[in-house]
Amino acid sequence: VGFQIIYNKKLMAIKRRFDENLDELRGTLLQMGGLTEEMIVFAVKILVQRDESFVDKVRAHENRVNDLHVEIDDRCLRLIELHQPVARDLRLIATALKINADIERIGDQATSIARTSTHLCRMPRIELGNIPRMVEVARAMVKDSLDAFARQDVKLARSVIACDDEQDRLNRGTFKELLRLMQTDASVIERAMEIILISRNLERIADHASNIAEDVVFLVLGKDIRHHAEDRSSTQALPQQAGR
Amino acid sequence: VGFQIIYNKKLMAIKRRFDENLDELRGTLLQMGGLTEEMIVFAVKILVQRDESFVDKVRAHENRVNDLHVEIDDRCLRLIELHQPVARDLRLIATALKINADIERIGDQATSIARTSTHLCRMPRIELGNIPRMVEVARAMVKDSLDAFARQDVKLARSVIACDDEQDRLNRGTFKELLRLMQTDASVIERAMEIILISRNLERIADHASNIAEDVVFLVLGKDIRHHAEDRSSTQALPQQAGR
Repeated sequence: VGFQIIYNKKLMAIKRRFDENLDELRGTLLQMGGLTEEMIVFAVKILVQRDESFVDKVRAHENRVNDLHVEIDDRCLRLIELHQPVARDLRLIATALKINADIERIGDQATSIARTSTHLCRMPRIELGNIPRMVEVARAMVKDSLDAFARQDVKLARSVIACDDEQDRLNRGTFKELLRLMQTDASVIERAMEIILISRNLERIADHASNIAEDVVFLVLGKDIRHHAEDRSSTQALPQQAGR
Repeated sequence: VGFQIIYNKKLMAIKRRFDENLDELRGTLLQMGGLTEEMIVFAVKILVQRDESFVDKVRAHENRVNDLHVEIDDRCLRLIELHQPVARDLRLIATALKINADIERIGDQATSIARTSTHLCRMPRIELGNIPRMVEVARAMVKDSLDAFARQDVKLARSVIACDDEQDRLNRGTFKELLRLMQTDASVIERAMEIILISRNLERIADHASNIAEDVVFLVLGKDIRHHAEDRSSTQALPQQAGR
């Protein structure tokens, strides 16, 4: 009986350690997500406030995000090795691995925005289309998708997936508006194209947040909604009408 | 002694089964990669041959890729649960999970090319810039990165990573060439912008192939090169000169 009690206590301590490790993992993912949110804001400040000093801030955050990306991957594998989780615990760690990759790519997109903005802010101002609104949507989607992961909140995750359609609509709107502008004034062509590229970056950030949200739904419900159009608010089929 | 022999035989049978499962997993990833290679080719045929019948082929492949994406994720998790692999075996499965996500996104990019091409092929022809060359580079990179994974070939993986610079250069060249074209002839603006978007899709496919190659290097050498510029052929730092 004495041995049994010691054994059970040991098992409970191991389980508790595992849960603590998972909490730390979640915390680090949220921290990394917060950094990429700030990167988006900094990158757009280069464009809107025409302040190149934010380039260094984006770069510093990028380095931290990249370090966390490597560290989180490593931690996930060590957790699997050490605790040999099954079922939902394993799915949680596999989800963390995927979310980690998505957050890192959100950072890449923000870096790309910073690069284009640096070029743009040295030229005369130009119409920004839906960019300010798209920044807000992208930030909120990144934040909400990670909160949905932390709280395993399917409802919040589904609302993130629904927002992806709005971002696509805003992106198409920017494209059309700037196309019209270019056709009437050739002097804005280069700048307008850069804005279109930034609009695309923001749309891709929304895609990554949407991927994270889909992973959360899968994690909680154990149901893969990623490729089932009927479960999504948007269809992934090729539309007859071209859109981008 | 008899028990020991039976036990050892059983362990060997389990190990053999695990290796067979890994081989199947590798085979399925290669199959999925082959489908996305074809998707790229089909999508560009819509543009170059102005043949919209390839849209259905892209769509059919996309559905198969999406099914395989879900199936491979599932298989990876079941392999971990069943065999509780550690060290390199675990890293191999984690790598398969990541490569799976990259291949699926390569398919997404090809679908995006198909969509833009469908729109473009209904309008008068326009200069394609480096697009044909970029298609070749993208296809070769996808193929080689997956071969590098299958054969655990670090040299081949490194050559894929090196190609990413060429693709970036071609993408920037397309951007500049079409920018010039638009500035001299306003009637091509819409079409030129679509070509630039396709050029970007092809550049992103190269990025995904490069990610796969980096994962292969990490798998084989156990060294994370993803965020160490000195180990890459290209630096990830923000250049002073704008590029996209």
